[in-house]
Amino acid sequence: MYIESLEKLINSFRSLPGVGYKTAQRYAYSILNSDNEVAKQFAQNILDAKSKIKFCEECGNFSETDVCENCLKKSKDVICVVKEPKDVVAMEKVKNFDGVFHVLHGTISPLEGKGPNDIRIKELLARIQKYDTKEVIMATNPDVEGDATAMYISKILTPLGVKVTRLAQGVSMGSELEFADEVTLTRAMESRIKI
Amino acid sequence: MYIESLEKLINSFRSLPGVGYKTAQRYAYSILNSDNEVAKQFAQNILDAKSKIKFCEECGNFSETDVCENCLKKSKDVICVVKEPKDVVAMEKVKNFDGVFHVLHGTISPLEGKGPNDIRIKELLARIQKYDTKEVIMATNPDVEGDATAMYISKILTPLGVKVTRLAQGVSMGSELEFADEVTLTRAMESRIKI
Repeated sequence: MYIESLEKLINSFRSLPGVGYKTAQRYAYSILNSDNEVAKQFAQNILDAKSKIKFCEECGNFSETDVCENCLKKSKDVICVVKEPKDVVAMEKVKNFDGVFHVLHGTISPLEGKGPNDIRIKELLARIQKYDTKEVIMATNPDVEGDATAMYISKILTPLGVKVTRLAQGVSMGSELEFADEVTLTRAMESRIKI
Repeated sequence: MYIESLEKLINSFRSLPGVGYKTAQRYAYSILNSDNEVAKQFAQNILDAKSKIKFCEECGNFSETDVCENCLKKSKDVICVVKEPKDVVAMEKVKNFDGVFHVLHGTISPLEGKGPNDIRIKELLARIQKYDTKEVIMATNPDVEGDATAMYISKILTPLGVKVTRLAQGVSMGSELEFADEVTLTRAMESRIKI
């Protein structure tokens, strides 16, 4: 039986990443079974998030203010550069880093027609000059695009006297060597450290 | 970094069944990355579904009208009884059944303090008498509560001359006997048919 408003809700849920029809249906039924107030709040939270959240003018991360709290309060001596806002969430868990971030909103990817001018590299340079930043940690993904972007930025910044570092690549904690891929093992071998 | 409207949206997504913090976060980021119009439509679809969808007065399934299309159009000679609206979706896929449904909105469950008067059994009786129904197919879940509810309804209806049947219980198509549990195999053995 076709119920128009139900199908529309299911379709909205299907637009979320990794959600197929069955999951979307489950979500929609759970909305129908929830209190009116809860459902209203859900809808309101979507509208609020969309209208209140913009990009921080400095770091490019999500923020409710023009410049985010991080950028207002923290030292800019070290800037950690990531691809997307969600990578900030991951890197914020790192215990021994408490500096600011810089979100590139993409990586250099010739295949997708994305060059250095399509991502926030200019803004990174401006920040480094403004705050006299000492070190830039490249925390782009350990893939071809992430590596290329890190290399590119390193080539620009090193002549300016900025130290550019890259997250170490190696075997993950708790993983088993047996299942590690060749590239990962090769990198881990190259980057081996004295104990 | 804490962004209030983002956290609220994440929390709304967490209230969906089977969604943990990481998944909710992914969903929220996808909303933030979507077009304004898409997000607005999402919120509107939640509100519309909640305000437009009610329960069909006859079968108890979700419906935008007082009596759903199914109940208006189809023969009531055979009624298929299920626990919840989502079971209707599952049973509608059955090719050789094209009758109406009856949603009990629960099953008899002494442990949860649910007796026969807490589910839509009275309404089922009224429909059967109104439409002179010939057969009731009990399609409650194959578990203790589902079986108990089927037995209870069968005891009420059989004296009234209504044929009460139950979905066959046995091994699933495509499954492997090796992994089937004892109870399923025992039921399948009891219900074996001549070929």
